[in-house]
Amino acid sequence: MRYCVIMCGGVGSRFWPFSREEKPKQFLDFFGSGRSLLQLTFDRVLEVVPAERVLLVTNRRYAPMIREQLPEVPAENILLEPARRNTAPCICWAAHHIKALDPDASIVTLPSDHLVLKEKAFHEALRRGFEFVEAGDRLLTLGICPTSPQTGYGYIQQGDEVAGTADFYKVRSFTEKPNLELAQVFLSSGEFYWNAGIFLWRADAILKAFEEHDPETAQIFNAGNDLYATPGEMEFINEYFDTAPSNSIDYAIMEKARNVYVETVDLGWSDLGSWKALYDSSPHDANGNVTQKCRVMQHDCSGTIFATDNPQQIIVASGLENYVVADAGNALLICPIAEEQRIRQVVNDIKERFGEGYV
Amino acid sequence: MRYCVIMCGGVGSRFWPFSREEKPKQFLDFFGSGRSLLQLTFDRVLEVVPAERVLLVTNRRYAPMIREQLPEVPAENILLEPARRNTAPCICWAAHHIKALDPDASIVTLPSDHLVLKEKAFHEALRRGFEFVEAGDRLLTLGICPTSPQTGYGYIQQGDEVAGTADFYKVRSFTEKPNLELAQVFLSSGEFYWNAGIFLWRADAILKAFEEHDPETAQIFNAGNDLYATPGEMEFINEYFDTAPSNSIDYAIMEKARNVYVETVDLGWSDLGSWKALYDSSPHDANGNVTQKCRVMQHDCSGTIFATDNPQQIIVASGLENYVVADAGNALLICPIAEEQRIRQVVNDIKERFGEGYV
Repeated sequence: MRYCVIMCGGVGSRFWPFSREEKPKQFLDFFGSGRSLLQLTFDRVLEVVPAERVLLVTNRRYAPMIREQLPEVPAENILLEPARRNTAPCICWAAHHIKALDPDASIVTLPSDHLVLKEKAFHEALRRGFEFVEAGDRLLTLGICPTSPQTGYGYIQQGDEVAGTADFYKVRSFTEKPNLELAQVFLSSGEFYWNAGIFLWRADAILKAFEEHDPETAQIFNAGNDLYATPGEMEFINEYFDTAPSNSIDYAIMEKARNVYVETVDLGWSDLGSWKALYDSSPHDANGNVTQKCRVMQHDCSGTIFATDNPQQIIVASGLENYVVADAGNALLICPIAEEQRIRQVVNDIKERFGEGYV
Repeated sequence: MRYCVIMCGGVGSRFWPFSREEKPKQFLDFFGSGRSLLQLTFDRVLEVVPAERVLLVTNRRYAPMIREQLPEVPAENILLEPARRNTAPCICWAAHHIKALDPDASIVTLPSDHLVLKEKAFHEALRRGFEFVEAGDRLLTLGICPTSPQTGYGYIQQGDEVAGTADFYKVRSFTEKPNLELAQVFLSSGEFYWNAGIFLWRADAILKAFEEHDPETAQIFNAGNDLYATPGEMEFINEYFDTAPSNSIDYAIMEKARNVYVETVDLGWSDLGSWKALYDSSPHDANGNVTQKCRVMQHDCSGTIFATDNPQQIIVASGLENYVVADAGNALLICPIAEEQRIRQVVNDIKERFGEGYV
């Protein structure tokens, strides 16, 4: 049967002061729609995978928030990591858990905090992707048709098309975030796609890949083979999970395996990984400003995103060009969008100087 | 005996969003010192005039705030105006009230929301001023030795020195706020002083001046002559105060009378009438930034004033030059200091578009 794993343990410090360690980005109602990004992600997959086969993997500190936001998810579908170890251990555990429930399972694994505007295309892509991986020992990643030379994304280069399919290709290479010049080359080549971090595979295929390409992690989780989906599972995880090396699935598996494929799709997708990405994904006013859930009276501002956590807040601004203005809780951020990569560092500095209360 | 009248009915909309109609500037603890500007003004005059002879004139909507901030002031010393009519009617009423208490009274009348850094010089100036006006039928205003070509102040031009005194001059002219060029001429001439709105006179002298130069106002308040400082006073005021024309004391009396003198003083004074004035009066960090009661982590900011109403607030700012950043209650202001004269208009616009909740 088909399963879905939503990864929702990230911190998302780039959206400080909106996202805080206690309430990361995926739990925020980013667009004022009444649903958090996690809830939107959950809603979105239900068309393809029924609720009882949707699993959430997260850090255990976020368990209460998940139960609050998704009361319809049964407790046994929430896998609580006792430590942060990036995506590889998370995915390995989830695959073991699901394989114990159903040895023939296929899985879509995806982040909880991305934006997808084209829901129908998304559903279609997942259905076709499931069919593709269920036909064999294949690891599939979704590649988003790029619309601009983004430097914030990893890229996937397509290889040969898979015979008898449309839009499925062997992966030639994965590339880390490029500089602008390279991103422009990628875009114009027509061969490169954004790596959305959405993966499909059979449970047995990904576990086999771990044994081949990340034997250390494979060995740790294989030791629990008799315990997955039993009452002994959490005790095992709590004891051994943090012995797994912290690693991304891209680095541990995808960049090494030979049976890796890309399904190229157009989903109206953004990883919302930065204020710039949020700015790009939001409706603009005549001056190219974006207003998130607040009242703004601006004069002589352009290319600026205004966001507050209080819909009753008014912002009066003048003379800002390409800025982020984000007012949330006890913190106010005013900085050029181009400098937002510094936010993570600033958040660390604040923690050091002023303690945990601001991060 | 010597009396003091503190005028504290103003609205101070230029300091929005800090000052609100419900809590104007004089009631705010501007410098985080633990005392509001009004309280600081009250404290400051006690060296010269005892508390029981300090009167407060204000709009009646602010009575609860005054009682809260100055519980030591007896109720009968608070004169509650039933309407806003600028300074002339306020001063006329207060003079009548005080003359009824003491026909020989002399009075210092001053605003409640200014900054005075040199307290000793202030006390000395008042004592010498009292002596000067008690010697005759004289209207005295304090003239502040200017330290820069401020365009936000009115100026007083000195005439001949009064024989047998130091620093007391006939007033040659009053000048409205000049443009920068003219302000520079004023400054270099050495003849012009900032008009601080601090006045001294005998009660009978100012009332005589009203009869000569503002007979309409004089007539209105003369009608209550039997009632001042009696239980019938407020009934009279509540019925007739709002029939007085709205007018400033400068325009009604000072610019017309011939017996007007200026005492030139150096008080470390600012009217705190604008963010620029507050900026100028506050300690600067190495980058020329001013921080009011909040934590700021700035990068590449200069000449900027940061202010919040929450001492626990942190502001992270980058790339702002000569800005005001003011976050208070449900409103956030970010604008170039040079544009602050627009704030009053913006506040009006907000009131029109979004209602009273923001002003």
